[in-house]
Amino acid sequence: MDRQDKAGACSECTLAYGRQKSAIRQLFEYGKTRAQEVGPEHVFDFSIGNPSVPPPPQVAVAFQALLDNEDPMALHGYTSAPGDPAVRTAIAGQLNRDYGTAYGPQDLYLTCGAAAALSSSFRALTREGQANDFIVPAPYFPEYKCFVEGHGGRLLPIPSALPDLGLPLEAIDKAITSSTRAVIINSPNNPSGKLYKKAELAALGALLETRAKTFGQPIYIVSDEPYRELVYEGHKAPFIPLIYPDTIVCYSYSKALSMPGERIGYVLVPPEAHYAGQIYAAIAGAARALGYVCAPSLIQRVIGQCVDVKPDLTVYDFNRRSLYEGLTAAGYKCIKPDGAFYLFVEAPAGDAQAFSDFARDHYDLLLVPSESFGFPGYLRISYCVSSEKIVSALPLFEDCLKVYKEKGLPTD
Amino acid sequence: MDRQDKAGACSECTLAYGRQKSAIRQLFEYGKTRAQEVGPEHVFDFSIGNPSVPPPPQVAVAFQALLDNEDPMALHGYTSAPGDPAVRTAIAGQLNRDYGTAYGPQDLYLTCGAAAALSSSFRALTREGQANDFIVPAPYFPEYKCFVEGHGGRLLPIPSALPDLGLPLEAIDKAITSSTRAVIINSPNNPSGKLYKKAELAALGALLETRAKTFGQPIYIVSDEPYRELVYEGHKAPFIPLIYPDTIVCYSYSKALSMPGERIGYVLVPPEAHYAGQIYAAIAGAARALGYVCAPSLIQRVIGQCVDVKPDLTVYDFNRRSLYEGLTAAGYKCIKPDGAFYLFVEAPAGDAQAFSDFARDHYDLLLVPSESFGFPGYLRISYCVSSEKIVSALPLFEDCLKVYKEKGLPTD
Repeated sequence: MDRQDKAGACSECTLAYGRQKSAIRQLFEYGKTRAQEVGPEHVFDFSIGNPSVPPPPQVAVAFQALLDNEDPMALHGYTSAPGDPAVRTAIAGQLNRDYGTAYGPQDLYLTCGAAAALSSSFRALTREGQANDFIVPAPYFPEYKCFVEGHGGRLLPIPSALPDLGLPLEAIDKAITSSTRAVIINSPNNPSGKLYKKAELAALGALLETRAKTFGQPIYIVSDEPYRELVYEGHKAPFIPLIYPDTIVCYSYSKALSMPGERIGYVLVPPEAHYAGQIYAAIAGAARALGYVCAPSLIQRVIGQCVDVKPDLTVYDFNRRSLYEGLTAAGYKCIKPDGAFYLFVEAPAGDAQAFSDFARDHYDLLLVPSESFGFPGYLRISYCVSSEKIVSALPLFEDCLKVYKEKGLPTD
Repeated sequence: MDRQDKAGACSECTLAYGRQKSAIRQLFEYGKTRAQEVGPEHVFDFSIGNPSVPPPPQVAVAFQALLDNEDPMALHGYTSAPGDPAVRTAIAGQLNRDYGTAYGPQDLYLTCGAAAALSSSFRALTREGQANDFIVPAPYFPEYKCFVEGHGGRLLPIPSALPDLGLPLEAIDKAITSSTRAVIINSPNNPSGKLYKKAELAALGALLETRAKTFGQPIYIVSDEPYRELVYEGHKAPFIPLIYPDTIVCYSYSKALSMPGERIGYVLVPPEAHYAGQIYAAIAGAARALGYVCAPSLIQRVIGQCVDVKPDLTVYDFNRRSLYEGLTAAGYKCIKPDGAFYLFVEAPAGDAQAFSDFARDHYDLLLVPSESFGFPGYLRISYCVSSEKIVSALPLFEDCLKVYKEKGLPTD
């Protein structure tokens, strides 16, 4: 009875999530197979957002010092559920130094990366027996959908404003109802690299404050910040709790410290937020129900020793500029990314899947079509690859567009 | 507005889980404070189930070899969501060697410990829009309640049969309805140390098979096995999928390798189980929705090198025998534990909380009353402490019972 399409003895919802093939993963798997056929130097895999620079040297030093000097039973033993107090104190110190805040360990809950932070926060904000809406500007990171809907909430995407993907404030305002629990902000953004400016976020904050008053309940911002430290040209990501206190921050060290597999991050519930104590407790309770006993213990301590380590952005910034300038010169329309390691490019002739297929089949260029990001007609190019790869791909991009325009346009 | 008792802007359910003080944690925290007052040598903390022997030496060797020899980007990078294929192959090999099975990497899904394995499995078995019951023989590990109920299911405890806590087969049979999704088995058991024999499990299997036929749908066993390798006197924990193929195994390396903080374990879905492919996919989808991207990557590789390492049980076994014999001689009624590191003792005069308070206040003996395990009238004694502690506690236990009987019995 295993061949049925309908769930035989399990959740329809999680069965669908388990079966769904992500567009990103499919391309990535294709790239690995293709590399075996034609050699890795001939495949240009821009599909996956995996850091391409090694962890900063302080990480290896911290691992070694901990393994050499600490009692292994303490090192590998349970920490308290919110995480080792000394590690949380160190993180609070870093935030306070960087942003002039006054956080303490009691405001932080260490998690298995930003995904756990997000899923626990969404679960905590999802009220039993009520409709629960989470608004997100599109394009957005596709996993939000299962983090929200897996707990019975509803993800409500609102298309961002072209040409530069600014916050769609009017549409957000219209979408808010008494069921709105939070607006998800991801700046710098995956897939677009877009970084919101302070004024834009302040306008969102003012809007949410007004609507929260209307409905007599808070509307939180859940700020997904794995790319907070990956910003270029002297930009700095505005720290949203300073702009709008009802902001729950979900952070991950995956991208900044190049350790996405280690699953370490945190939730910050600012004490200034409405119901801060309850929200913190509900997130702790959600993490408990979801089976997160504590964040992995050794890596917690590594982070405790690396809180002030900033990523070396030289490679990403070179790639970003080369790709943006090269593609623009070749005739592509790109959204200029101020952060993260993604370039969002308008699909020639508007059909992202068709161009992605064409680029894959004729040039071994692997570009993710944007449908799954809730914003059709674009391609995501992850430039977390070697700079060599970028340089050698540029002529292919140029040729690909030329040939596609000649042959590929339906109206030609 | 933060002082209200009712949830202001969050889930009532997870708020309750976040606020709930566990009886175990309360005693443990009390013990730490008390140790500062009177000195740690005067406090006898039997509250917490934290391994008291260091990780086997192979663990440190594996960490060092991996950090010395592997590319840090691969070592700390994402693995595939179910876990590194080589690590899963190694685990399948260990199971096949130990149990004569023929599992492959595709049957295993690595998780952040048994808690994540359980929560993902319960979520996967919880069908939307239906009642979902999970039966568990009591006494049981209290966290099952939030793992099940946090996803909207219902935990249905069935008291085990005295005097030896055998499986309450008749009562389980009566409790099964079309809403029954699984029976949770935890053998060796926390809190009792009880190990089910093969014949007992076979009788349960036969019963479930019959009832599954009645209702035309499988009824799974979810087997929570963190203590599988902690068995004494030549016993071996029967491997339940060999007895009843519809068994989902949730394993953790926390106890066997003394690394509970590192959060590493797995789900095994035997290919022989009904709907095995769907169940595996639904568990993968649940893990995805719950925010488990992959199990922590470095520790995955450590496990890959330590699959055949068995725990050294010398200390636990000495503690177990000393405590069981000492307490029995002193007049306590104990359930003889064949596994895990817990001794389950009848509360003198039947009131576990009263005796726990008395032992704490007059002898600094910290014993967990069994109410939260769904089986009142007992005390759980965790003997994962130093053997010295056990030896020096025995006279106190003896004296405590004598004085309690003289002064404490309500009928005296």
